[in-house]
Amino acid sequence: MGKKLTKRSEDYSKWYNELVVKADLAENSGVRGCMVIKPYGYAIWEKMQAELDRMFKETGHENAYFPLFIPKSYFSKEASHIEGFAKECAVVTHYRLKNAEDGSGIIVDPDAKLEEELIVRPTSETIIWDTYRRWIQSYRDLPLLINQWANVVRWEMRTRLFLRTAEFLWQEGHTAHATKEEAVAEAEQMMHVYAEFAEEHMAMPVIKGVKTESERFAGALETYCIEALMQDGKALQAGTSHFLGQNFAKAFDVKFATKEGKQEYVWATSWGVSTRLMGALVMTHSDDNGLVLPPKLAPIQVVIVPIYKGLEQLDAIADRVAPLVKELRTKGISVKFDKRDTHKPGFKFNEYELKGVPVRLAIGQRDMDNGTFEVARRDTLEKVTVNADEVVSKIQFLLDDIQKNIYKKALDYRKEHITKVDSYDEFKAVLESKGGFIAAHWDGTVATEDLIKEETKATIRCVPLDAEEENGVCMVTGKPSKKRVLFAKAY
Amino acid sequence: MGKKLTKRSEDYSKWYNELVVKADLAENSGVRGCMVIKPYGYAIWEKMQAELDRMFKETGHENAYFPLFIPKSYFSKEASHIEGFAKECAVVTHYRLKNAEDGSGIIVDPDAKLEEELIVRPTSETIIWDTYRRWIQSYRDLPLLINQWANVVRWEMRTRLFLRTAEFLWQEGHTAHATKEEAVAEAEQMMHVYAEFAEEHMAMPVIKGVKTESERFAGALETYCIEALMQDGKALQAGTSHFLGQNFAKAFDVKFATKEGKQEYVWATSWGVSTRLMGALVMTHSDDNGLVLPPKLAPIQVVIVPIYKGLEQLDAIADRVAPLVKELRTKGISVKFDKRDTHKPGFKFNEYELKGVPVRLAIGQRDMDNGTFEVARRDTLEKVTVNADEVVSKIQFLLDDIQKNIYKKALDYRKEHITKVDSYDEFKAVLESKGGFIAAHWDGTVATEDLIKEETKATIRCVPLDAEEENGVCMVTGKPSKKRVLFAKAY
Repeated sequence: MGKKLTKRSEDYSKWYNELVVKADLAENSGVRGCMVIKPYGYAIWEKMQAELDRMFKETGHENAYFPLFIPKSYFSKEASHIEGFAKECAVVTHYRLKNAEDGSGIIVDPDAKLEEELIVRPTSETIIWDTYRRWIQSYRDLPLLINQWANVVRWEMRTRLFLRTAEFLWQEGHTAHATKEEAVAEAEQMMHVYAEFAEEHMAMPVIKGVKTESERFAGALETYCIEALMQDGKALQAGTSHFLGQNFAKAFDVKFATKEGKQEYVWATSWGVSTRLMGALVMTHSDDNGLVLPPKLAPIQVVIVPIYKGLEQLDAIADRVAPLVKELRTKGISVKFDKRDTHKPGFKFNEYELKGVPVRLAIGQRDMDNGTFEVARRDTLEKVTVNADEVVSKIQFLLDDIQKNIYKKALDYRKEHITKVDSYDEFKAVLESKGGFIAAHWDGTVATEDLIKEETKATIRCVPLDAEEENGVCMVTGKPSKKRVLFAKAY
Repeated sequence: MGKKLTKRSEDYSKWYNELVVKADLAENSGVRGCMVIKPYGYAIWEKMQAELDRMFKETGHENAYFPLFIPKSYFSKEASHIEGFAKECAVVTHYRLKNAEDGSGIIVDPDAKLEEELIVRPTSETIIWDTYRRWIQSYRDLPLLINQWANVVRWEMRTRLFLRTAEFLWQEGHTAHATKEEAVAEAEQMMHVYAEFAEEHMAMPVIKGVKTESERFAGALETYCIEALMQDGKALQAGTSHFLGQNFAKAFDVKFATKEGKQEYVWATSWGVSTRLMGALVMTHSDDNGLVLPPKLAPIQVVIVPIYKGLEQLDAIADRVAPLVKELRTKGISVKFDKRDTHKPGFKFNEYELKGVPVRLAIGQRDMDNGTFEVARRDTLEKVTVNADEVVSKIQFLLDDIQKNIYKKALDYRKEHITKVDSYDEFKAVLESKGGFIAAHWDGTVATEDLIKEETKATIRCVPLDAEEENGVCMVTGKPSKKRVLFAKAY
């Protein structure tokens, strides 16, 4: 366990980095910018995957798998796409190693140079649309609703565990439609799916909106997004869904025959969330004692710690606990009885607090005598003594209540951290003193957006879907504006 | 649907290639040697994954994720490992593209050359043992039982869909143990897990055994395997489990403190199965009409095809079918009611035959009048008429019976195709005329094994676990031998 966590108030960034490692979520590997996702972290990711996968299938999508490598020439076919992704990619140039002739070790075999370099996918639009050309001939082949779970690589210079890594895991949906309206509806639908997942499962409130032109995905006509707010007042883009128009269909010549027999280009969307959500989950709920996990995503929902002297007491406690464990499992609750004799109860309490286990039961001799358990909840750290015959319903209540409570807490924090401002001075003051989202009028130009970003490091996170029509003037240029947009510093 | 499949008897290899594509399992991509796994194929793989993952977790393993890239120097640390894998790997040498100065397009930026080249993992022993050094200090940290689901790349020169592709999907287990006995037991256990999966779920009989020294995994002291027999008499290695001794622990300096406080090297295993199993599944059961899928892995277990004239009849059939669909789903049976009006029933019958759907129901006006369904099973192509009130139990019986029947059929085929021979001439004759496994005595030397391979293309698939002790003489050299080994030509 080592020494205590840095406090959030001291150094939020350091707190995050320490917590991810100490709670056994992930660590840096020997490969620059690439992380190892440890079993406890991966177990949370698996729960996220399972739920998202269920939601994708419920909305009619199927999974498939496309190649890791993309020929360099594919990338050049969509002009804005190559601009967006060429700067940060891993390039495969050779296909063999050999022993150096001077005996100095293993070298890349110069005779094994590829004719055309392969890019390790940073995203798969190009290889997938190259495939869709073969799959789509007629309106009968549409819509094509496909998702892929995969690893991708973007050669980031500054990396942080989960938030920005050279390799990360994600899902990418790629759909093809006969009409613009259908494609736009799909892109919007997936934004709503992501928002529902974030709020219902991660207990993380998000704002739905669209990106400004300069923040759009390279190749998209519209990027829908969900934006969350972390406890340090910085925003985090948690998921995006893109309406791609006919850009990729034109670049890869994907046409379909309409019912009337005309040839038309196909309309496209793509959408993705990644292991970045793990970072968002940690930063939304956790505290100075460690992780706070929403019960719906916690690998261990309930831990039982015995407090005992000698094996005889431990055996008696184990006997008492066994039917409870069985009953909880029958109800679909994941439970761990930690009977390790190599660690003291105090150590275990700290460990499960650090790992964010939602409900902790302790049982010692006095509880044995009284027929009780000590029940502690991770979110508020409250402890109560509960009779054995009420403990299952107490646990069920707590799992439900913790899920709701941490959502409400995060929502309250966000409500307090959306500030309306009407002048640029006020904007700068709020950004420095309070952070969070700032709702302000903007003239709609890239020039003004760039100026604000340069001067304050704040970006337009989104134009919220539910923004009210309101006549105002841009806080910087005084030009007219019809609605407020949300600015923030962001991860 | 296009024209008919090539018959197996005409050209087995062509039959396989056509079937994989026509049944929508996979296809070649624009990237040399890399396949696209199509939704129907991926749905089968997902079922395999789910079952294997359950079995791994039941035997105490946890999932994690390690980097895609491995620094070149890691590879060199285990001598026999680099020998085995250096010849066929994708090498990342640069991390950026840029616009060519002469305007000719996108080129690899020569200024973005990596200091040390990165290998796209062909298998992850090296990166994982580099990580385990940080995770293992004491006997308390052992055993470490970890699995990873991942993509890997081996630069094969001749590729075939599923059987041999440059990129493939797999799982790789990597475990660490305090004692040799425990590690050997783990490697054996996983061979048994694989065999159980193959037989119970894929309905594919396998022979368990160990590899000879020259067929072992690069870096292993013992390789356990399961070997299956395809319908053309060629063997297919379906899964391997390696006892790695202390080779990787020594290469990566992974020691642990024993209970007594001594420092010792850790003992290791690794084990894997891949999308190659998809090829094995296809080749074990399928026939000249298309796929035959075991019900336990079929994405669609039951399809219902309406035979109707006009929308009114279709609506009436849909009403009759709806409660049946619901009841089957409640029982966990996946069912599809194909009411497309763009295709005729005959077309649909062929399509579901091609795709290996185990049970097909058809219902037309006469069935509506009589309260019956026509029920066809894919394995034998038998059709019977069944009363509506008996159709659910008939379907349940068939799903169970088809699973058993195709296993028995494959087992009978294999029994007929294990031939004992006692002379090298007989060996060559059987190999050419009948194929299959040949049980023969061998003197235990690499030289003889190599000679046989060179002269006949047959390799020793394994020394079967259940091989009887039997005094004999090597069919080639006449030297003494204590048991027969299994030879075959193999995929």
